[in-house]
Amino acid sequence: MNILAICGSLRKKSTNLGLLRYAQHNAPEGSTITIADLSQIPFYNADIADKPAAVALLLQQMGAADAFIFGCTEYNYSIAPALKNALDWASREPENALLNGKAVALMGAGGGMGTSRAQYHMRQICVYLNLHPLNKPEVFANAFAGTFDGDGNLIDEKIQGTIKTQLSALINFATTLKS
Amino acid sequence: MNILAICGSLRKKSTNLGLLRYAQHNAPEGSTITIADLSQIPFYNADIADKPAAVALLLQQMGAADAFIFGCTEYNYSIAPALKNALDWASREPENALLNGKAVALMGAGGGMGTSRAQYHMRQICVYLNLHPLNKPEVFANAFAGTFDGDGNLIDEKIQGTIKTQLSALINFATTLKS
Amino acid sequence: MNILAICGSLRKKSTNLGLLRYAQHNAPEGSTITIADLSQIPFYNADIADKPAAVALLLQQMGAADAFIFGCTEYNYSIAPALKNALDWASREPENALLNGKAVALMGAGGGMGTSRAQYHMRQICVYLNLHPLNKPEVFANAFAGTFDGDGNLIDEKIQGTIKTQLSALINFATTLKS
Amino acid sequence: MNILAICGSLRKKSTNLGLLRYAQHNAPEGSTITIADLSQIPFYNADIADKPAAVALLLQQMGAADAFIFGCTEYNYSIAPALKNALDWASREPENALLNGKAVALMGAGGGMGTSRAQYHMRQICVYLNLHPLNKPEVFANAFAGTFDGDGNLIDEKIQGTIKTQLSALINFATTLKS
Repeated sequence: MNILAICGSLRKKSTNLGLLRYAQHNAPEGSTITIADLSQIPFYNADIADKPAAVALLLQQMGAADAFIFGCTEYNYSIAPALKNALDWASREPENALLNGKAVALMGAGGGMGTSRAQYHMRQICVYLNLHPLNKPEVFANAFAGTFDGDGNLIDEKIQGTIKTQLSALINFATTLKS
Repeated sequence: MNILAICGSLRKKSTNLGLLRYAQHNAPEGSTITIADLSQIPFYNADIADKPAAVALLLQQMGAADAFIFGCTEYNYSIAPALKNALDWASREPENALLNGKAVALMGAGGGMGTSRAQYHMRQICVYLNLHPLNKPEVFANAFAGTFDGDGNLIDEKIQGTIKTQLSALINFATTLKS
Repeated sequence: MNILAICGSLRKKSTNLGLLRYAQHNAPEGSTITIADLSQIPFYNADIADKPAAVALLLQQMGAADAFIFGCTEYNYSIAPALKNALDWASREPENALLNGKAVALMGAGGGMGTSRAQYHMRQICVYLNLHPLNKPEVFANAFAGTFDGDGNLIDEKIQGTIKTQLSALINFATTLKS
Repeated sequence: MNILAICGSLRKKSTNLGLLRYAQHNAPEGSTITIADLSQIPFYNADIADKPAAVALLLQQMGAADAFIFGCTEYNYSIAPALKNALDWASREPENALLNGKAVALMGAGGGMGTSRAQYHMRQICVYLNLHPLNKPEVFANAFAGTFDGDGNLIDEKIQGTIKTQLSALINFATTLKS
């Protein structure tokens, strides 16, 4: 099981990236989690005739993924542009081949309510993309003292446990959807 | 009355840009409508220490605006990253000084349902930003043959009329909110 | 495959009920579609000590269902109270046993945009209830002349076809989820 | 200033009702807050030819109100049917005369996130009804020990303070909108 994790924040010490890194280091046996690099992905624009190299690599990773994790950074009560933009690029591929029917786990940190507002917007996006977000468990991490260290690493044990549960649920759901 | 219009699409022949251009050419007497240029605005990233010049100009225009028009391009059932990103940059200014309490008109073309799905997400964003979107009239333009010409200019007379009504309502609402 | 259809409108000639009736008469081989009767279901209220008989029957039907169809009548840009209320009653059963993990198809008529605004709210409700709404095809019927007859029967052939496609997709999805 | 408060929960010891009661007892000078009684309001149904007496009274109270407070009980990640149903009845009056252009304050208790999910759905409903919900402050009360007493009375001082701030903002906003 090959899982691609994509983060809405571009910041190096992002707590959302910290969640994805925790997931990566705790990938269930038989699975690998890769974190996509969005730093060189430009805004989608239909006038761009040739795909930039960074976009081509991202799309290749998406196509190779069996399932996804989205780190749903919340800015201003909705999703972060970098993550949405990655999906907008992917959605232009013929027959939605990179995303169609795949399972997704959503997680996020911050936003006052653990990015819940961004996550519900993301779920609506998944309808169009025919992605299947897990219903439960939802991962809502607040950025209180004691949740992350100064480098954005997740140190809250309860949320660590929820992520492990979610990863296991993601693998089960992805397996079911492919059957 | 100084109105700043911001478009979610970066495409030159964008129909959403066409809506804004129609508004600009039909600005009610006593008002001027400027269309922002987002082509050089990078993704917001808290690690960027110095504001790029294009961002500084955009923020200056936002601060000088009495009201806004958002061209709510819809991609994949939600808002276009370029527009959201412009607002994310603006939201980092102290005391939300560029946006706080201002009126907004939303319009959009395409998306199967006239960008309604994107517009409702935008309305939630406005809650946090303390922007006041007009309730009515809503402007939902589909991109059927006969709505726009090949350069993205709005040619549908009914939608032209709705935009004129909306502009008038925007000016009234902005005037009321400032009283 | 036992499918329970629930309608948001209580009106006898409801077009949303007409959609469900069309589905019922075109249930794929091997499936039966029952339409729930909400006319005697009171508002959920935790102070009501004993379940009314109509509620008990509804909950029994929900528990026996392998999948659901929700006729998502839209009032005022959101879901109709009668349908939401039926789900609120169901959600109080221990371990979410009536709904947990089941597949749902959403359809609706009216609301200016085929009840899309109500359907996206319903999808958020499904997250909590751990229901799995089909992503595609979405069924959005407008109530234009020629879509329904005067008794609320669906006569538009294109929408009839979409419903048949949706029913087939629902059965496949429900079968996959149970595997 | 005549304010009508409407609660989504019908339960006698409802914490959402407790928020409204706190507001009522702390109505700013020059304002009165009335709490509507929804206990006898049936589900809206276009087949009902004559308005029940309880509905007629509610609609009369709505028409007489200068502004509203909605106690946004959250069930299953969305609004409670009783509150939505009250608005559905009101929306059928000619020219939206009971609601059109009025200001609203939203508050709620419970739902895991202070009813935020229900409140954002309510905000979308307000677009159609041409109600103007306050952006800030939002009132999100969790139902933790120490927030309410056993009868649903609000005892948390911080939330008490936020409600007082919100009431003051509501009166200002309603006054501005009427100018």
